[in-house]
Amino acid sequence: MRINAERLHENLRQLAQIGATTGGGVTRLALSPEDRAARDLLCRWMEEAGLRVRVDDFGNITGRRAGAESGAAVVMASHIDTVRRGGRYDGAYGVLAALEVMRTLDDTGVTTRRPLELVNWTNEEGVRFEPAMLASGAIAGRFTPEYVYGRTDRDGATFGEELERIGYKGERSNRPGPIAAYLELHVEQGPVLEDAAVPVGVVEGIVGITWSEIIADGRADHAGPSPMPLRRDALVAAARMISGVDDIARAIDGAVGTVGRIAAEPNVINTIPGKVTMSVDLRHPDATTLDRLVAGLERLASDVAALTGVAIGVNRFWTSEPTPFAPEVVDAVQTAAEEMGITTRRCWSGAGHDAKYIQEIAPSAMIFARSINGLSHCEQEYSTPEDLEAGANVLLRAALRLAGIKGERTTHKRG
Amino acid sequence: MRINAERLHENLRQLAQIGATTGGGVTRLALSPEDRAARDLLCRWMEEAGLRVRVDDFGNITGRRAGAESGAAVVMASHIDTVRRGGRYDGAYGVLAALEVMRTLDDTGVTTRRPLELVNWTNEEGVRFEPAMLASGAIAGRFTPEYVYGRTDRDGATFGEELERIGYKGERSNRPGPIAAYLELHVEQGPVLEDAAVPVGVVEGIVGITWSEIIADGRADHAGPSPMPLRRDALVAAARMISGVDDIARAIDGAVGTVGRIAAEPNVINTIPGKVTMSVDLRHPDATTLDRLVAGLERLASDVAALTGVAIGVNRFWTSEPTPFAPEVVDAVQTAAEEMGITTRRCWSGAGHDAKYIQEIAPSAMIFARSINGLSHCEQEYSTPEDLEAGANVLLRAALRLAGIKGERTTHKRG
Repeated sequence: MRINAERLHENLRQLAQIGATTGGGVTRLALSPEDRAARDLLCRWMEEAGLRVRVDDFGNITGRRAGAESGAAVVMASHIDTVRRGGRYDGAYGVLAALEVMRTLDDTGVTTRRPLELVNWTNEEGVRFEPAMLASGAIAGRFTPEYVYGRTDRDGATFGEELERIGYKGERSNRPGPIAAYLELHVEQGPVLEDAAVPVGVVEGIVGITWSEIIADGRADHAGPSPMPLRRDALVAAARMISGVDDIARAIDGAVGTVGRIAAEPNVINTIPGKVTMSVDLRHPDATTLDRLVAGLERLASDVAALTGVAIGVNRFWTSEPTPFAPEVVDAVQTAAEEMGITTRRCWSGAGHDAKYIQEIAPSAMIFARSINGLSHCEQEYSTPEDLEAGANVLLRAALRLAGIKGERTTHKRG
Repeated sequence: MRINAERLHENLRQLAQIGATTGGGVTRLALSPEDRAARDLLCRWMEEAGLRVRVDDFGNITGRRAGAESGAAVVMASHIDTVRRGGRYDGAYGVLAALEVMRTLDDTGVTTRRPLELVNWTNEEGVRFEPAMLASGAIAGRFTPEYVYGRTDRDGATFGEELERIGYKGERSNRPGPIAAYLELHVEQGPVLEDAAVPVGVVEGIVGITWSEIIADGRADHAGPSPMPLRRDALVAAARMISGVDDIARAIDGAVGTVGRIAAEPNVINTIPGKVTMSVDLRHPDATTLDRLVAGLERLASDVAALTGVAIGVNRFWTSEPTPFAPEVVDAVQTAAEEMGITTRRCWSGAGHDAKYIQEIAPSAMIFARSINGLSHCEQEYSTPEDLEAGANVLLRAALRLAGIKGERTTHKRG
């Protein structure tokens, strides 16, 4: 059994027209007019595919395909909101591949043992309403409804008002689940699969992330009359920190470290910077190793301070713990790929996804499709039709393994 | 013969009240109401000291004390404009010490052979009207009157309009000089004298300065899913450039190198910077060495590019050639200090001063007074009364050496 690739690509093409940018990408912010139009189209397609569609109190859209048994469902989910000038596949691919799985089952007349659900999560990106993964976090009990409804965009509009305005505020009783197992298919957003020449990634978890702020406090002086040995140049100290973060991350397998944001003061061509503020983003699948990375950052700060005479403060202000996925769901994905003869690579997601929160309430895993140049959150994001097809087929087979097939189960019982 | 230190300090105190800031500094931008009030006070003091005061077509104020001979004068000069929230002594000290020299000569009844002139240059700082040292540059023929009058401040007011508005647009025939020798006394603006525990610097010239822009072009990627070996992080490359600039400058005696300005794109905590733009300020007393420093910067850029996979462009866009002062004027300063038993240190000015342009038309030198912590262009700028007195006494003696004393010359002729 294989999905209909032409139908999947045609749906991806049509959905990408809603909020299409001139640069070939998509801007479809959560609860915007574009999001509403895309939701309307998605609901129509879901109904045409025979799914029972329901909308919950956070605007999450669930389409259910009945199984031979009632009860907990195998859920396939992602999101159709995007960042500004984002890609065509980030989110949309996972939703439309799940829809294609449903259609393929109809085409082949298969009834699964467990019900299947397709879920479109509201506001995964967090670009319009912070934080990201707001609605899946609420479903997992991380956020209260009051918190969710009160989130405001930069114009002061609240999530609650905007949800009502686009007509997607439903009932609490319509929330997805109960969830027997959760699968999320996504484009990779990184270059690992491309580098390994492998089309599909079997995702074992979502790495832990910790953010620190670094402040280097030196002394601003005139760039001319200050001899080198008498300087306390905050930017020179910051530069040694940036190189050091790179070295620390490279020294530990699976770690990444990034200084993404930097501001120097007074930031004038002929003045030695007196103060530099920067961010450090450290990630690793293992919480203890993440702590070791931060300890390394703190040691680095004392070393650089001693070397340069610049005071360096490290403030670790936010941590998202690592989320290992459920081994049985990861194994289902792995076996599904092997059945199809699709080569895979085990990997961890370096970015957050709704699966992070859902793993807290149900056994979950993710599937990645190879991304060209690893680009995402930009108009250049691209995956080949072949890789998108391969990922969708793995989703199909994994869902079948987790849900079971009515006939097979019966056969087994009889035997 | 020694200056009256009490009178000098009292004048400095009074002048610092015009434009005084709450932080103990001064804001007295060129051609502002504060500049006018300070000019009015200065002119009154100059007239009270018996000087013949004239104002030229750029607003430069010259006070002349006749010598036994007519003709070219020994000129002592500086400026009374300041930066925003600048110090009390930058500029004002040189002008008021020159005034104190005139008064001391009156007190002791000395007539010099050559005439003496005190000059207050307009718009030395260049904060309100760019570039700096505008009026001395015009006197030296670097800028035409049309160029000077057309300079605009950030509100669109022109130099010419503002000069007329404050009532200081005089005649071309009132320009300073002709100049037999030029002396400029200034607070150091750097920590060299303090570090050497010496009160007075004998300045041998103004260093050459060259400015380059560096653009590091890497690839912006999500900070999570991009393994370290696959990154092209523009900020990591920039950090290696910043450290390298520091190393290059430290390796060459008398050189300084500063990255003062930096901007990363997109400058977001969880995105690998794709592009970094920075400035590099390199200075050295010798033009050939300055070229070697830039060549070192270019080699560094290729090395870092090869190491990081980030393209690095170096664009040298501005150079101010080194200006060695006239040895005979430098020697006069040195001998004057030795006569007074004041310890000195030979040094180069790392910052620009009006003396840079005047050296192009007349033999010049500068005298520095020690600055606490080397601070300048800030409210914390400070020099002790003793050091200010020492610097003024060196100015007095140097001016006397260059101008000659009537009696001494007569004696010599008779002999």
